[in-house]
Amino acid sequence: MSESSQKPYRIGVAGLGTVGAGVIKLLQDNQELVARHAGRPIEISGVTASNKDKDRGVDLSAYQWMDSLDDMINSPEVDAVIELIGGSDGMVKDMVEGALKKGKDVVTANKALLAHHGFELSKLAEENKASLAYEAAVAGGIPIIKALREGLSANNINSLYGILNGTCNYILSEMRETGRDFDDVLKEAQEKGYAEADPSFDIDGIDAAHKLALLGALAFGVKPNFDELEINGIRDVESRDIKHADELGYRIKLIGMARRAGENFVQVMEPCLVPINSALGSVEGVFNAVMTQGDFVDKTMMEGRGAGEGPTASSVVADIIDLARGNNLPAFGVASNELKQATWQNADSLSYKAYIRLKVEDHSGVLADITACLKESSVSADSFLQHPRKEDGEATVVILTHEEPLKDIKAAVEKLGNLPCVLDKPMLMRVEEV
Amino acid sequence: MSESSQKPYRIGVAGLGTVGAGVIKLLQDNQELVARHAGRPIEISGVTASNKDKDRGVDLSAYQWMDSLDDMINSPEVDAVIELIGGSDGMVKDMVEGALKKGKDVVTANKALLAHHGFELSKLAEENKASLAYEAAVAGGIPIIKALREGLSANNINSLYGILNGTCNYILSEMRETGRDFDDVLKEAQEKGYAEADPSFDIDGIDAAHKLALLGALAFGVKPNFDELEINGIRDVESRDIKHADELGYRIKLIGMARRAGENFVQVMEPCLVPINSALGSVEGVFNAVMTQGDFVDKTMMEGRGAGEGPTASSVVADIIDLARGNNLPAFGVASNELKQATWQNADSLSYKAYIRLKVEDHSGVLADITACLKESSVSADSFLQHPRKEDGEATVVILTHEEPLKDIKAAVEKLGNLPCVLDKPMLMRVEEV
Repeated sequence: MSESSQKPYRIGVAGLGTVGAGVIKLLQDNQELVARHAGRPIEISGVTASNKDKDRGVDLSAYQWMDSLDDMINSPEVDAVIELIGGSDGMVKDMVEGALKKGKDVVTANKALLAHHGFELSKLAEENKASLAYEAAVAGGIPIIKALREGLSANNINSLYGILNGTCNYILSEMRETGRDFDDVLKEAQEKGYAEADPSFDIDGIDAAHKLALLGALAFGVKPNFDELEINGIRDVESRDIKHADELGYRIKLIGMARRAGENFVQVMEPCLVPINSALGSVEGVFNAVMTQGDFVDKTMMEGRGAGEGPTASSVVADIIDLARGNNLPAFGVASNELKQATWQNADSLSYKAYIRLKVEDHSGVLADITACLKESSVSADSFLQHPRKEDGEATVVILTHEEPLKDIKAAVEKLGNLPCVLDKPMLMRVEEV
Repeated sequence: MSESSQKPYRIGVAGLGTVGAGVIKLLQDNQELVARHAGRPIEISGVTASNKDKDRGVDLSAYQWMDSLDDMINSPEVDAVIELIGGSDGMVKDMVEGALKKGKDVVTANKALLAHHGFELSKLAEENKASLAYEAAVAGGIPIIKALREGLSANNINSLYGILNGTCNYILSEMRETGRDFDDVLKEAQEKGYAEADPSFDIDGIDAAHKLALLGALAFGVKPNFDELEINGIRDVESRDIKHADELGYRIKLIGMARRAGENFVQVMEPCLVPINSALGSVEGVFNAVMTQGDFVDKTMMEGRGAGEGPTASSVVADIIDLARGNNLPAFGVASNELKQATWQNADSLSYKAYIRLKVEDHSGVLADITACLKESSVSADSFLQHPRKEDGEATVVILTHEEPLKDIKAAVEKLGNLPCVLDKPMLMRVEEV
C-alpha cells in the first residue's frame, strides 16, 4: 500500500445527538476494523454541536471542539464533514454547500435536505471534485443506497416498494397485534420514545416520502422530486381496517411505491394492503424493507433496522470507509448532467385492486345502493364483508375490488361517499400484490 | 469528466454458456445505462469458448473470436477477463492467474475456484495492482458480496446464515408443497432443468459450501477455508421430516451458518429447521437469502434469485461497472496481509435445540427406552411426536430437544441408534432460531 494511502482520513462530526454519538462510539469501538476496511486510519479532527457541555455518553475529550459549523468547514484538518444535524434548509444547507465548495466530502443522514436539494448538491459536489454520501438517510442500517447505485446498477429498475418509516410500521404492527386504536398506540409509542412529541413528520408520511424521493432518483436515474410525490399518512387507518384486511389475507403497511408507467414515472407514499405472506407483509415493528424489480435481476429484497443509533452509525461509517478508500461515486449513481428530468404522473391511470371501507346505515337496500353505485362506475367487487354494529344501527361494509383503473375506483368512492346511506368519508387503499 | 475516464473499459468474455450469453445480452440491451453508471463505455474486445459455431442466442459477430484463453490474457485490447467457465483448477485457474499476473482485472462467477484458492488469488491480484471481483459467485443476483465488503463494513459481523443453493431450496419447497419424496422431486427438477444430470454438487451441499466459505471470509476478515467446513447435503431429508417439522412450526432448509465462537469460528452447511414465520423460513423455491448480524447494524437480510442467466449477469456486470469506475477493493475487503488465519471449530461445543427422527418398532416400552437414553445423555425433550404406521408394525418417533450442547445431543443420537427398538439410522438436524 502506498504511503499516501496510509494518511488518515480526517473527519469533522457536526451534530452530536443520538446518531452523532453513535458514529463516534462506532469509530472508537471498531477503530481497527474500520481502518482495515478503509485501508487507512479514520481520524476525528473535530466535533461541534449546539451545546458543548452536555453528556452524550461518549468520551469527546480527544477531539477538538469547534465552535461553529464555519470553523469546521474552514478547518484545514477536516477532509470530510459528517452532517448529523438534520433539517432541509438554513444553516445546515449552508454548511453542506460550504463544505462541498471547499472540496470537502460530505456524509449525511439528512433525507429532508437531499429530497429537496439533492440534485443541486450533487452537482455542486461534482463541480468541486468532492463526494456527497448519504447511505444513512434511507432505511437506517440497510445498505440500500449502495445496492441501487452499485449492486444493481446493471439493471433498468422497473419498480421499487419500501417500508421506510419504522414509527409507522411499529404503530401499524402494534394496532394489529393488540387491536387497539391509532391514537392509543401512538400515545404509547411516544411514551416509549418510538415516536416524536410532534409525530406528524412520521405519521403523515413526510419522512418516508423524503426517502422514497431519493430511492426513486437512484432507481430510475432521474432528479429527485419530492414535490410531485403523492403522500398520505396513516392517521386515517382504523383498527377495524387492519382487522378486515387480515380477514381478506392482507396486512396494512405504509408503502412507498415508485415505478415506471410507460415513459413516465409514478411515486406514491400511502398505506396499502399487501399479502400477509409476502416479503413486505411480514416486515413487522420498527424494521424497514425495500423490494426492487430490475429487468435482469428480477426481484431483490433487503430488510433491516430502519433507525436507531447503531444501524444509522453503521451506514454513516460505511460511507466514510468508502470515501477514505477513494470510492467516489456521483451522489445519484450517474453524473448529474445525465440525471433525467422525469415526468411524474399520478397513479390514477394505473390499475389496482382496492380496499374500500364504508360506514353505512344498517337497513335493507343499502347493499343494493352500493352495488348499483359500483356498477355505474364500472368497478366490480371481488369480495364483500359486512359487519353489523347492532347497538347503534350502523354497519361497516368492506369491498375488495377487482383490478380496475384507479381513477374509476376513485370515482366510485366519491359517488359512494355521496350516498345517503353512507355515514362517513369512505376509506380507500390500494392493494399492492408485491 | 476527464478525457481518460471516457476511454472504454475493454473486456474479454471467456465462457459462453448460460451466464456468458446472459452477460453479453445485458451489455447489449443496457449498453447506455451501463456506460452511464460506469462513467465510460464498456467494450467487448473479444470472446472465447470451446465451440465457436454453436448458436447461443446472442449476436457475437461484432466481437473478435479468440482461439484460446492464452490469446485473451495476452491481448493488449483486454483490460479485464470475465471468467465464466467454472471449475476450481486446471486451465481456468491458470488463466485467472495469468490474467492477474499481467495486471488485468478478473471478474468471475466461479465459487469453486475462489473457495479453494481465493486467498492466493487475492494476493496475486494485489501484487499486480489488479482487481478480482466475484459478486456473481454467491447468491446470484443478490449484491451480498458488496453488502458485506462495503455496506456493512463498519461492523464486526457476529453471525451469518444463508440459503445459498436454489436447487436444494426448490427441492425442499416442492417436497413440502406436494408431500412427494426426495428422489421423485429431484427427478422432476432434473427434467425441468432446475437440477443437473449429476446433481451431487448441489444436493450434497458442496456448491452452497463454496459460497459459505467466501461469505465467512468476508464477514470475519479471515482467509476462506473450504476444507474445514462441515457439510451435509439434503439427500437424507425425507418428506415425513418436512411434515413433522411443519407440525412443530418449522421449515427444513439447507442452511449455511458461519459464526463466532469466542475467539474461534464455526462454519457448517447442513439442513436445519428454521421457524416457519422467520425471514429464512419464508424463502421458497429457487430464491436465495442471506441474513447477517453485526454489532452495530444488528440483523440485515437480503433475498433474491440465486441463479439463472439474468440475475447472474446482473452481478457480473455490476462488478464490471465498479472496476470501470475505478472502485478497486481487495477481494476480501481488507488487504490480503490483514486477512487473519481463523481457527475453525466444529459446532459440537455450541448449544442448540435439535430435531431427532427415529424409525422404531411399534410396541410398548419403546418410548421408555428412548426417554431413558435421552436422560442418560442429559438431553431433555421439548416435544415428542409419535406416528404409528399400522401396516408394518413400525412407528416414527420425533423428538424436539431443549437447547443443549450439540455434542451431548449427538452422543444421545448415537445411543438411540444402538437401541434394539430403533430400526434405522436416526435423523438429526439442528434448529436455527434465526
